[in-house]
Amino acid sequence: MTDSAQLTGVVPPLVTPLTPEYDVDTASLARLIEYQLTGGVGGVFVLGTSGEGTFLTDEQRQVVLETTMAEVSGQVPVLAGVIDTSTARAGAHLSAALKAGVDGLVATAPFYAATHPAEIERHFVRLASLAEDTPLYAYDIPSRAGVKLPAWLMISLGERGVIAGVKDSSGQETSLRRLVLDRRDAGLSGFAIMTGSEVTVDSSLAFGVDGVVPGLGNVDPAGYVRLYGAAASGDAAAARAEQDRLIRLFEIIDVPDRSRMGASSAALGAFKAGLYLLGVIACPVTAYPSIPLDDAEIEAIRPLLDRAGLH
Amino acid sequence: MTDSAQLTGVVPPLVTPLTPEYDVDTASLARLIEYQLTGGVGGVFVLGTSGEGTFLTDEQRQVVLETTMAEVSGQVPVLAGVIDTSTARAGAHLSAALKAGVDGLVATAPFYAATHPAEIERHFVRLASLAEDTPLYAYDIPSRAGVKLPAWLMISLGERGVIAGVKDSSGQETSLRRLVLDRRDAGLSGFAIMTGSEVTVDSSLAFGVDGVVPGLGNVDPAGYVRLYGAAASGDAAAARAEQDRLIRLFEIIDVPDRSRMGASSAALGAFKAGLYLLGVIACPVTAYPSIPLDDAEIEAIRPLLDRAGLH
Amino acid sequence: MTDSAQLTGVVPPLVTPLTPEYDVDTASLARLIEYQLTGGVGGVFVLGTSGEGTFLTDEQRQVVLETTMAEVSGQVPVLAGVIDTSTARAGAHLSAALKAGVDGLVATAPFYAATHPAEIERHFVRLASLAEDTPLYAYDIPSRAGVKLPAWLMISLGERGVIAGVKDSSGQETSLRRLVLDRRDAGLSGFAIMTGSEVTVDSSLAFGVDGVVPGLGNVDPAGYVRLYGAAASGDAAAARAEQDRLIRLFEIIDVPDRSRMGASSAALGAFKAGLYLLGVIACPVTAYPSIPLDDAEIEAIRPLLDRAGLH
Amino acid sequence: MTDSAQLTGVVPPLVTPLTPEYDVDTASLARLIEYQLTGGVGGVFVLGTSGEGTFLTDEQRQVVLETTMAEVSGQVPVLAGVIDTSTARAGAHLSAALKAGVDGLVATAPFYAATHPAEIERHFVRLASLAEDTPLYAYDIPSRAGVKLPAWLMISLGERGVIAGVKDSSGQETSLRRLVLDRRDAGLSGFAIMTGSEVTVDSSLAFGVDGVVPGLGNVDPAGYVRLYGAAASGDAAAARAEQDRLIRLFEIIDVPDRSRMGASSAALGAFKAGLYLLGVIACPVTAYPSIPLDDAEIEAIRPLLDRAGLH
Repeated sequence: MTDSAQLTGVVPPLVTPLTPEYDVDTASLARLIEYQLTGGVGGVFVLGTSGEGTFLTDEQRQVVLETTMAEVSGQVPVLAGVIDTSTARAGAHLSAALKAGVDGLVATAPFYAATHPAEIERHFVRLASLAEDTPLYAYDIPSRAGVKLPAWLMISLGERGVIAGVKDSSGQETSLRRLVLDRRDAGLSGFAIMTGSEVTVDSSLAFGVDGVVPGLGNVDPAGYVRLYGAAASGDAAAARAEQDRLIRLFEIIDVPDRSRMGASSAALGAFKAGLYLLGVIACPVTAYPSIPLDDAEIEAIRPLLDRAGLH
Repeated sequence: MTDSAQLTGVVPPLVTPLTPEYDVDTASLARLIEYQLTGGVGGVFVLGTSGEGTFLTDEQRQVVLETTMAEVSGQVPVLAGVIDTSTARAGAHLSAALKAGVDGLVATAPFYAATHPAEIERHFVRLASLAEDTPLYAYDIPSRAGVKLPAWLMISLGERGVIAGVKDSSGQETSLRRLVLDRRDAGLSGFAIMTGSEVTVDSSLAFGVDGVVPGLGNVDPAGYVRLYGAAASGDAAAARAEQDRLIRLFEIIDVPDRSRMGASSAALGAFKAGLYLLGVIACPVTAYPSIPLDDAEIEAIRPLLDRAGLH
Repeated sequence: MTDSAQLTGVVPPLVTPLTPEYDVDTASLARLIEYQLTGGVGGVFVLGTSGEGTFLTDEQRQVVLETTMAEVSGQVPVLAGVIDTSTARAGAHLSAALKAGVDGLVATAPFYAATHPAEIERHFVRLASLAEDTPLYAYDIPSRAGVKLPAWLMISLGERGVIAGVKDSSGQETSLRRLVLDRRDAGLSGFAIMTGSEVTVDSSLAFGVDGVVPGLGNVDPAGYVRLYGAAASGDAAAARAEQDRLIRLFEIIDVPDRSRMGASSAALGAFKAGLYLLGVIACPVTAYPSIPLDDAEIEAIRPLLDRAGLH
Repeated sequence: MTDSAQLTGVVPPLVTPLTPEYDVDTASLARLIEYQLTGGVGGVFVLGTSGEGTFLTDEQRQVVLETTMAEVSGQVPVLAGVIDTSTARAGAHLSAALKAGVDGLVATAPFYAATHPAEIERHFVRLASLAEDTPLYAYDIPSRAGVKLPAWLMISLGERGVIAGVKDSSGQETSLRRLVLDRRDAGLSGFAIMTGSEVTVDSSLAFGVDGVVPGLGNVDPAGYVRLYGAAASGDAAAARAEQDRLIRLFEIIDVPDRSRMGASSAALGAFKAGLYLLGVIACPVTAYPSIPLDDAEIEAIRPLLDRAGLH
């Protein structure tokens, strides 16, 4: 991917397979990447929210980056999350990712401290100057970062060449659609708008979004690639049918018992359990201190995979 | 402070003075510590929320730790924040703080990812095992960490010797009071309960809280020491009068224009501006990407210092 | 509309035109209804959120009902909101609406008190028994009623014949889509799912929603009718173009200065100002104690009407 | 109570006893009032949140008003809630309450629609003009009304004679304390500040609040009267001991199973169950559609009454 290439298609946010001792399982990560490439994805995104990037040490992050770059080996672009509480701390991750040779960088607003749009703007401007020619994408995830990235700021940063696009995980379809219109009216080219929602992809593609970064794509990359292909070729009925199937598959995240684990652990644990049942990764554990799924929960995911035609 | 000593009194969460180039200003930090010790504080807490710990690089954190340990030189206990998104990342900060020789460690729940009490429990248990004999305190700050630490979990962790107490910045007086009763009914000794509120200190001390960790104590340590002393000696009227004066002084955080900066920047910027006007620190800038107070805002803080009798 | 007829198409939630003295302006209401019927709407919904039903006295509600029934005169179905804090109070509105001869009833969850799904269920069951053969619709508006109606409860109430459908103003596209799938999988017929969103209509119709209840439809009923028609005939591009035009028209709600009025006043005031500028209603005032738009704000709406082709 | 009398002391917000058929149980209401007067309360407040005022029909409200005025018979002031969605609807309740001869009126901000402080101001100004010489109190309950009443607005309305005080059920001790200071600095006399919190009464009285409106006071009016008396006579230790006992008694609201009923039903159901077990009221049912406590839950409350010394 060159500087001017616009991100499109299916770019799953890869989970980070771990060993029972909470080390990065590089063999499983390699298999996961192979599974994604076979599925036809247009890129991969590591160290994002699904990648448990905020759980990993700097050393573990380095292992993920190196393993991924080696396995992908230029076949598709690799994006890396540089998500941290402040510009300085995200900047340190950014430098490491650049050195590893990634094709794109993905940053949220700073968090923990309460920030203002003018501060978020400074954050992205500084990160972009560190990123030099490597595209920087803004990651809008208010449920985690505590703040919604304003559309006007995204467009303004795009016009100035600070960011190359947005990954929208806000779950707010109306603001996403307005962002698409704002991009059109601003005549902004080379600015990617990707949805992070697993369940509204056909709709979003229909109103002008460029692609999708679905956590569930870890489990069924080929399904999202078919969905994207159907939408791209104008077959709305096929896209809808594929989306409806994936909505039902997404119910795997409701299997884990949320009276004993957090929402993040439940969703990521379900994705990992799915990959474990499919033989892609060796161990479904999520990062410490997350509570792992128990055997019964893992087994309860199997019929949902079957129903979705995954074996 | 030894393992068995219980935290009490006034323990301000020190701001981290910065140069205009965003380096740690060690000379100003030394003066701030001197100002605190002269004010009579019972301890200092560095790298907390007021200390902008989540904004600093590992190297900057190291400078803060070393400067503080050297300046305090054993006169009072030094607590260090080890606040980060996950157990592994907080654990790395914890190891650095231990090596620097701090007397206590302060950790929030993990954040960014959504966590469950059972996961928070695992977080503190692991950190405590890393901390060995150095006391670990739980820092309850739902506005930043996104979750309220349940009282039953705090008591349970106290009973098992995992944590040595709680710093409560929840702003929920009713739950704080219930925590005090739960401690009493559990017969839990050596378990400190400190309030992080600037403005309810006399009330909290009256119902059994042990001390206070007030951000505003940066600006007026002697005021909080007088307040604590009055409460400790049973002079409720004097405590209330001091508290009322400090409530008015706390209005400095409303001076900065929140239409152009975040709530964190406004509060910390006001504390730093106060210290700058008092000649304690050389530069009032807050950590990047925070918007700094402008000259007019800094000057508008001066009359509020005067009204409070600070010169 | 008979008991078995399913609600579809465009059913605008009519504003309630008021005089400068805050009486119901029946002449303006008659013109508004005429404007809607000329626009081709499939029904009208009075005394909803857009109708300021919760602001009006029982006497004013009666005037709205009688005027509407007389003007519509059976040309399209008339739905009436029976929105109030409790079952007993909503039930009183329901009896009045039934007596006026409306074709359908629309109720939210009870509010002010915090309720549980089991209590919401009892609420709808009781109201349905009062409604007898007149269809009852559940109105899902968490921003106002403080609670999201669970999909499983809606489906269950549908299966038991308690409710005839849902108006979804939750703004949560993912849950709306899942509700559509749940209806399909439950084999539930005669159960209408309507979106209350002004700006995602083409998407929602594409994934199976039956119709739309758009506040903005007060101002441009013909636009929504064209959008619905394009979608119904499978012309996705025309539907999208119409939706995009309406998204831009919807920006009239951002014209009023929200530093001096509430979000409800701003949106409803903008709709009324649009109708006033179009000559449909005589006075744009919103219900007391809402702050009305001033002359400059009203005039600033005119160019947005022009841009959308409304004169 | 005359126009100039300031509200002080213990003024419980009375529950509304109901029959199993959901009629107002006037005999039980009479016994409840007798129980309160025997307990020494300084006033009673009917048709508030605890009184389920928003659940009752106009006819039921009238029964409550008439029964209360007859039973109290001038021994203490009677306040009546006039809580509804809009000025017009609250105004209708206000007229009925005035006609019944109440001594004070209590109104929240309008709700359901999202309001602005300028609209809340208009609401209180209009209600005050309807109330004529009867004092109007502002009821600050953001958890139910969806908005926090700003301190500056309360003080301003007090200075203009619009409101005679505030009942604060915000649970925000810091803003409550600042309101007390603002009243002092404004030199505002005849303006009552009452806390609606059951569990911070001694603290609030110590910093200048005038009295308390505790839902739990239904069950133990004498306890709150002793608490108030101790605080008024400067015996902080006795006040704290009484408060601590009442905090434990307040745990009755945690007895009902919140997986099957709402938070409002749980709290009010617990109060009513307590009164039922104490022989004050004949039936513990809460207003429809609230889920009532089952027999086991009612029995589980008995030991908590015993522990608190209530028989």
